[in-house]
Amino acid sequence: MQGKSIAAWRYQHLFLIVLHTRYEMCPHALIPYKPINPKTRLSCMLSQEERECFARAMLNDVIATVRDANCNPVVVGTELYDSEDVQITVNDADLNQALNSILPLSTGPVLILMADLPLANTAAVKQMITTQSDMAIAPGRGGGTNAIFLKEPSRFHVDYYGMSFKKHMKIAEEAGLSCEVIDSFRLYTDIDEKEDLVELLIHGTGTSRQYLESLGCTLSEQKGRVGVERAKSPGSPAP
Amino acid sequence: MQGKSIAAWRYQHLFLIVLHTRYEMCPHALIPYKPINPKTRLSCMLSQEERECFARAMLNDVIATVRDANCNPVVVGTELYDSEDVQITVNDADLNQALNSILPLSTGPVLILMADLPLANTAAVKQMITTQSDMAIAPGRGGGTNAIFLKEPSRFHVDYYGMSFKKHMKIAEEAGLSCEVIDSFRLYTDIDEKEDLVELLIHGTGTSRQYLESLGCTLSEQKGRVGVERAKSPGSPAP
Repeated sequence: MQGKSIAAWRYQHLFLIVLHTRYEMCPHALIPYKPINPKTRLSCMLSQEERECFARAMLNDVIATVRDANCNPVVVGTELYDSEDVQITVNDADLNQALNSILPLSTGPVLILMADLPLANTAAVKQMITTQSDMAIAPGRGGGTNAIFLKEPSRFHVDYYGMSFKKHMKIAEEAGLSCEVIDSFRLYTDIDEKEDLVELLIHGTGTSRQYLESLGCTLSEQKGRVGVERAKSPGSPAP
Repeated sequence: MQGKSIAAWRYQHLFLIVLHTRYEMCPHALIPYKPINPKTRLSCMLSQEERECFARAMLNDVIATVRDANCNPVVVGTELYDSEDVQITVNDADLNQALNSILPLSTGPVLILMADLPLANTAAVKQMITTQSDMAIAPGRGGGTNAIFLKEPSRFHVDYYGMSFKKHMKIAEEAGLSCEVIDSFRLYTDIDEKEDLVELLIHGTGTSRQYLESLGCTLSEQKGRVGVERAKSPGSPAP
């Protein structure tokens, strides 16, 4: 999980020059990411250090997927972190402010994809970025939005949290943008809670699943309900 | 919700004659359905009568969808019920036994689709039945299986409950059947619990959503989390 060098642009204006997409078919993929104390709803299963490693593994899975779909990943981090070979921009504003400061200045198409979507695969991302509509949106469980693709980012602004899917559909309508809703359980499934780990252990294929397994997390079944349990190991929190 | 006539085949052998599909492009869609006291995990929101009406509304949504996708719906009921204009077969065995007694005798392709998938749409069902593989499977949340399409039903048997998705993938492999996993949140989302009603109120377009709304069920938002609440009305259970 540890890289070798810090290669981050701390100043957004410098970053934005890079964000101007030159190739229509290689959109930038903005990936919001919180490196410090992420995924607190997984505290029942994972220590803070483990949650940070796990979030990083999910991010790496997402980065690999968007690259495979011919997108250029750009991590939008809340803090500077060891970013190895991926472009990052640091913005300590909240998610909406951070993204809405970038979108108006982006001249090429942009994909926004959450970092906690380790089930996202190349086919689903390609479905997003090849939409015939002005934009595409992938809903998340509980009214959320997990991915947005914008052909003209300057015509849209994001409004995450709460019922963001409905809010984004309304923003699209008010902006006169046609919008395709992408029907993908791989994009729909964000990993926030213990129950979500079931999905990763069943359907995941990347490093985040491997990391969970390395911690001793396995599927369990009681009375027909599938859950996740963790073998106790030195230094691990109680399951 | 009330129909006009009972038109059911009580004897499976008679039913099976009908199940032999004549047209390759119009597979039968087997829809398991429990008309009496269904969806008990929704008891916190709905009375038994309301749960029965709601389950029926979801079934009607599923039937409308499979018809729109050029499938012939066949309800596999645990009990006889007023089936209006849809073909039904009654089998009081458990789900696996009921379906596994039908599959070996089916000569044409068969789709198996759960009755609690009111978000299923025509595009997702068509994706299932036009697979290039020997079969297609749509996973459900928590390791389940929400839909299976079989070009040669006699080569497969179902094994629902628990981690059925993994079991079905293994059965396919052992039978030498190529299997496409369908990536659809609309097929992935079965409605079992109160939290699932959020999905129906946001993404549903059919009669089951209308029925929920007629009971006074609406989306609510607290601390950024989206839930469902129900206005108290005479005769309704406390939310």
